Amino acid sequence: MKIALAQLNYHIGNFEFNTQKIIQTLTEQKAAGADLVVFAELSICGYPPRDFLEYPEFIALCKQAALEIAEACEGIACIVGVPELNPVIEGKDLYNAAYFMADGEIKQVIRKALLPTYDVFDEYRYFEPAHEFKCVDYKGYKIAVTICEDLWNLGDNPLYKACPMDELIKEEPDFMVNIAASPFAYNHDEQRIVILSQNCHKYQIPLFYVNQVGAHTELIFDGGSLVFDKAGDIVSELKYFEEDVQIFDVGQVKSSIVLSENQERPSDTAQVHQALVLGVRDYFQKLGFKKAILGLSGGIDSALVCALACEALGAENVMAVLLPSKYSSDHSVKDALDLVKNIGCKHTTLPIAQVAAAFEETLAQEFEGLAPSLAEENIQARSRGVLLMAMSNKFGYVLLNTSNKSESAVGYGTLYGDMCGAISVIGDCYKTQVFQLARYINRNGEIIPENTIVKPPSAELRPDQKDSDSLPEYDILDKILFEYIELKKSSKEIIEQGFDVDLVKKVLNLVNNAEFKRYQTPPILRVSPKAFGMGRRMPIVGKYLF
Amino acid sequence: MKIALAQLNYHIGNFEFNTQKIIQTLTEQKAAGADLVVFAELSICGYPPRDFLEYPEFIALCKQAALEIAEACEGIACIVGVPELNPVIEGKDLYNAAYFMADGEIKQVIRKALLPTYDVFDEYRYFEPAHEFKCVDYKGYKIAVTICEDLWNLGDNPLYKACPMDELIKEEPDFMVNIAASPFAYNHDEQRIVILSQNCHKYQIPLFYVNQVGAHTELIFDGGSLVFDKAGDIVSELKYFEEDVQIFDVGQVKSSIVLSENQERPSDTAQVHQALVLGVRDYFQKLGFKKAILGLSGGIDSALVCALACEALGAENVMAVLLPSKYSSDHSVKDALDLVKNIGCKHTTLPIAQVAAAFEETLAQEFEGLAPSLAEENIQARSRGVLLMAMSNKFGYVLLNTSNKSESAVGYGTLYGDMCGAISVIGDCYKTQVFQLARYINRNGEIIPENTIVKPPSAELRPDQKDSDSLPEYDILDKILFEYIELKKSSKEIIEQGFDVDLVKKVLNLVNNAEFKRYQTPPILRVSPKAFGMGRRMPIVGKYLF
Repeated sequence: MKIALAQLNYHIGNFEFNTQKIIQTLTEQKAAGADLVVFAELSICGYPPRDFLEYPEFIALCKQAALEIAEACEGIACIVGVPELNPVIEGKDLYNAAYFMADGEIKQVIRKALLPTYDVFDEYRYFEPAHEFKCVDYKGYKIAVTICEDLWNLGDNPLYKACPMDELIKEEPDFMVNIAASPFAYNHDEQRIVILSQNCHKYQIPLFYVNQVGAHTELIFDGGSLVFDKAGDIVSELKYFEEDVQIFDVGQVKSSIVLSENQERPSDTAQVHQALVLGVRDYFQKLGFKKAILGLSGGIDSALVCALACEALGAENVMAVLLPSKYSSDHSVKDALDLVKNIGCKHTTLPIAQVAAAFEETLAQEFEGLAPSLAEENIQARSRGVLLMAMSNKFGYVLLNTSNKSESAVGYGTLYGDMCGAISVIGDCYKTQVFQLARYINRNGEIIPENTIVKPPSAELRPDQKDSDSLPEYDILDKILFEYIELKKSSKEIIEQGFDVDLVKKVLNLVNNAEFKRYQTPPILRVSPKAFGMGRRMPIVGKYLF
Repeated sequence: MKIALAQLNYHIGNFEFNTQKIIQTLTEQKAAGADLVVFAELSICGYPPRDFLEYPEFIALCKQAALEIAEACEGIACIVGVPELNPVIEGKDLYNAAYFMADGEIKQVIRKALLPTYDVFDEYRYFEPAHEFKCVDYKGYKIAVTICEDLWNLGDNPLYKACPMDELIKEEPDFMVNIAASPFAYNHDEQRIVILSQNCHKYQIPLFYVNQVGAHTELIFDGGSLVFDKAGDIVSELKYFEEDVQIFDVGQVKSSIVLSENQERPSDTAQVHQALVLGVRDYFQKLGFKKAILGLSGGIDSALVCALACEALGAENVMAVLLPSKYSSDHSVKDALDLVKNIGCKHTTLPIAQVAAAFEETLAQEFEGLAPSLAEENIQARSRGVLLMAMSNKFGYVLLNTSNKSESAVGYGTLYGDMCGAISVIGDCYKTQVFQLARYINRNGEIIPENTIVKPPSAELRPDQKDSDSLPEYDILDKILFEYIELKKSSKEIIEQGFDVDLVKKVLNLVNNAEFKRYQTPPILRVSPKAFGMGRRMPIVGKYLF
């Protein structure tokens, strides 16, 4: 038997697009000799559909698409992911299901048992967990089909009591199929390979694993579908960050023949780079946009975002706007222009002096006799935001946000100013990671000017301002932030690692006090195990200070 | 036995404040003769603590506070809500628990079984459901203690399989105690009374029900704690929208003596009014702010928000800013000034002409030869946003957002312009409800000028603009929106009700296309069963159009 793994990029709620893509793949793979094509979790509607799942009309459209796909299953079988109405009244309205289809009809329904409800996942909001499990019989083979998280309990995951494979293995299946929607984080591919391999090792049968690929707003799915032999060794690994369809002969996999070269695993920085490019590209493609705009300050954050956008969309579709003020240094303008020259994107310059002056004159009477403060600094940042949005509105450019995770964490940014944008490109990258990414972008020659990388970071909102005036050096700051945000360590534990007591308390209080700002920021492309946004839900009104 | 119901306003994560408040109440109620004081769900940390629950330090502080409270339980007992570490490794890390405390120690732990994981609730994200139930024995009485949702399955709620009271009733308890954190929606108090009453009726014992009161960012808790006799009739009802502590004699309740006059149930509009005032007041008090600012256009939305803010914070703490443009009509300025005069708040005028001109001059070269468009309209809205934020930054005012639910639904608002603000006061009120609230505000005499209420709504961003130029009349629009957002009806079902086909499709597409805007709006005070924000989670990148 030949199995095709179809690692495709779906579009949430675009039933016509998804159905056509699935049917076309079925046709092609039938011609290529496949007996069974496996698609990803919730492939019919795209993952995650979120609260669209609460609309009966949406579920009906899923079913309609499934029936269309079933009709195309003549002489070939497939497994597709789809939300399924719970046929009984008790429990949640839906199952996260897979349909096994053959002979023009839905032959069997497989339901997911382990429903991730943590971090970015809300599956128990929508789905009833399955309690019954049955293998699929097809062409003389017994197939243990599971859905994503169902393989993430080997009997020792404290989150779950059920272990679907412990039930399915009783039928003595020949191999496992797992359909997934497993989002990228720089450490997640390794974890995924380990747990999948352990399943093979435990059950002593091969595994065909299909992940979806593509970005859905903040969540980026990296693909990297896998075939393991029964010992848990990788037989084949599909591409990362792009669509890929490959056919495997079950007999060969059972004989542990390595069918393709193992891909060299790229560095975390290289993976994050690929993820962000895909994240930007899919945001634009799936919303029907082509052109991006961003403010280019001469600093490293906007330079990196500019380079990523040019790679994702083509330099000809990126407009970089220099928005110098009286506090902008000469080198900033030069650095920005050097980048534009290196990269070949469009650019223009809109000095903010006139606008900032108009604001200050309009406010002169109100502010009379008061010293300049944060208010005047923010006027500059917000003047830039308004100019960029005006260009966006006039020409249909989509504004890219250029904030990084360090400044977003401590609230070092101006709401409605530099925190504007439709999507935050590097908002899940700490400043130290921003430097690593910039170096990576320059791996084959200078794109981001060296001076942009080596000069001390500054917001340039007042004379001779430097980030280090009000924040610790980024290598220290980022370590404290990582301990608190990613590892959820207590202030005490962080201090015990040798960081200054007052500094730790100051940083943690800054993080907690900046919730109100982060609430209003754009969605952030997620590349870490704990990104700001849907995966981190904090109260705004509260008092949890150190 | 005498039971005190303590309906208090907690502060999330403010352990010192909550603990002190609880201990002080214990002391007072002991002096007043109470044997048992009942506090609300998660009273020790405030509800909802959200992802703070994932911090071990936060849980340890909860435990420490609980032990402090236990020490105060000499000669008096209490029931308090607290997150509790799951003592076994299997399952989620925590239980949503209640401690029964007496004789200076924690005597018994009660755990919640039914974990709401829908709309604004994420309890299964954090908590393991309880599977074992035991009554509390105290002073010769057997008490069936449950937590909030635990009483929301009478055996016929499809969401839940467990029914804790069906287990507890086997011990033949004398009465029920339920501790809750049940957020306000205009239709929720009636639902709550029905289901609680049905519990009494089913189990034939009285019920003491304690809800928390107070607002936590978007969620407003209305209090309204209740005592029911065994027939399910209301014996007493505590205050709504304010703290209240009352003592009841169990013997009298068992004899069905009505202990206080039933409060007259106010209209939905009156309840929403009270909820919004509390929502604004608590947002400010709990974050330590005193002064609010808002833009006053002369239109009904900002007039209503101004009136609500003055009621919540005192007129002397509210600064209304008139921000007229060349398109502002004379009547707008007059209407705004009339309101200020009626209400007595501070005001100032900052014309936006100079700023808007500076933007247009700065952009003149870029925009050369192009007709005025949305870009120029948005520049006006955003100039206002920057001016208001400058005043906020300079003087410590907190900006109130004045968008309503109708415009937020269809994306009729300018991101970083009129969509700015720390908290959206009326963002869960449709325009038709805004009119009802304005009339209610004027119930004892004109506060909001009559002309503001009767004139046709307009954004005044271009000459002679009216909302009805681009939107249907609000009574039609709001009905379509309600069917789609609150009732999750399909386009087909809405059309079948007699609305115009193209209009329905246009409106639903506007709603779905505006997700990107709503993602970046301030938190919205929730007063309906389906508010934009944490209770409605939609994909931005997707294509689910009609």
